[in-house]
Amino acid sequence: MLDGEKIKMSVVQMVKIVGLGAVALTLSVEWLGWLFCRLWPRKISRGPLKEVFFFPTEVACTERLFTPDSPFPCPCPLPHNVNTSFTRLLGHILSASSSLDLCVFAFTNLDLSRAVLALHARGIPIRILTDMDYTLITGSQIGAIRRAGICVRCDSGAVHMHHKFAVVDGRRLITGSLNWTLTAIQSNKENILVTEEPDLVLPFITEFQRLWDVNDPARRHLPSIAEKTASLVL
Amino acid sequence: MLDGEKIKMSVVQMVKIVGLGAVALTLSVEWLGWLFCRLWPRKISRGPLKEVFFFPTEVACTERLFTPDSPFPCPCPLPHNVNTSFTRLLGHILSASSSLDLCVFAFTNLDLSRAVLALHARGIPIRILTDMDYTLITGSQIGAIRRAGICVRCDSGAVHMHHKFAVVDGRRLITGSLNWTLTAIQSNKENILVTEEPDLVLPFITEFQRLWDVNDPARRHLPSIAEKTASLVL
Repeated sequence: MLDGEKIKMSVVQMVKIVGLGAVALTLSVEWLGWLFCRLWPRKISRGPLKEVFFFPTEVACTERLFTPDSPFPCPCPLPHNVNTSFTRLLGHILSASSSLDLCVFAFTNLDLSRAVLALHARGIPIRILTDMDYTLITGSQIGAIRRAGICVRCDSGAVHMHHKFAVVDGRRLITGSLNWTLTAIQSNKENILVTEEPDLVLPFITEFQRLWDVNDPARRHLPSIAEKTASLVL
Repeated sequence: MLDGEKIKMSVVQMVKIVGLGAVALTLSVEWLGWLFCRLWPRKISRGPLKEVFFFPTEVACTERLFTPDSPFPCPCPLPHNVNTSFTRLLGHILSASSSLDLCVFAFTNLDLSRAVLALHARGIPIRILTDMDYTLITGSQIGAIRRAGICVRCDSGAVHMHHKFAVVDGRRLITGSLNWTLTAIQSNKENILVTEEPDLVLPFITEFQRLWDVNDPARRHLPSIAEKTASLVL
């Protein structure tokens, strides 16, 4: 065999080895990642945010969440700097930077009301959908929220608008069994699920918009042309 | 430059080109996948099962879900072979092949009760946790389920066991705002989220087991040694 042919062969072999090596390396990395995820699924947080927390929660001071830059420690007798289910929920609500869409059956909790008002004071657009009957319960925060200028729409149907979900910044879903009441937070057995998984968040965004449009007060009684003409004539 | 050196240079260049080509190809594939997911997140179903559906649902016949092998069509006047939120929920419950853990506040729906009894008849282990007060409401199915021999534990605390979730086969979570009642399914605005995402399912499995143990009737009154001795003496 000539020297030229030998060198040609070695070049071809080298190319094959490098090519196969690159493919083997890629597959190994993918496979190791998959294996690691299967063996220790809880240790790796892959993909969008996913959290679950349960109630009742222990009672703790939430002042730090509202005034993180305050140089003065809160003098209240409650435990401070404690991470509870409720402080996590409040943290997610207060993390809103561009929008908050809330669809909740009962809303009486003062801390959650304060969080919504704080977001409103920061200029963040807020839309609240709630059940008409439950705006009348003792301690309902809907009146105070409306008076602050936040847009609220009520479902006044004969049945319940029983949802308890919020969408923060159009990408973070907070949903579960928990109504925004003190009893739910401090007494009942409840759950909250937080996720940014698009397959789970997008249907809630669509449903919120649908319910928001359906419960537009301007739509409830759109006078017909005949009615308009009659009113003009009268 | 000598011929040998020229060939050596061309080999080195070839190796570099192939190596860079392999890296570029790998990165392109990963990047294209990421881009495709960002642009059309709903079109690709990546990862574990994720579903959301809303209520109220239209009323449709569910007979086919219970008797899929029946040669006779159902004669009832309801629409048949219609895919509704409720048939999807029922389908997920009936898909259980190894276990069903159910933690529900109110349970009066006859179709869901029939599904639970059908699973029990197939020999699938079922555990049901519910709120004691709500076992007494009109139409509660808990009595019928208990009489069939299914293990039920009740939370008899002064506050509500307000969860509405189920875990099918230890890996599929069904959760949301929906109680297992006819009003919730056919009238209220409600949501159900179904997922097999381990980060979301595992906390619910752990919480179910905790509540199951806490509400073990054998734990409610464990007599002390003194009490046992007293009863023996008397």
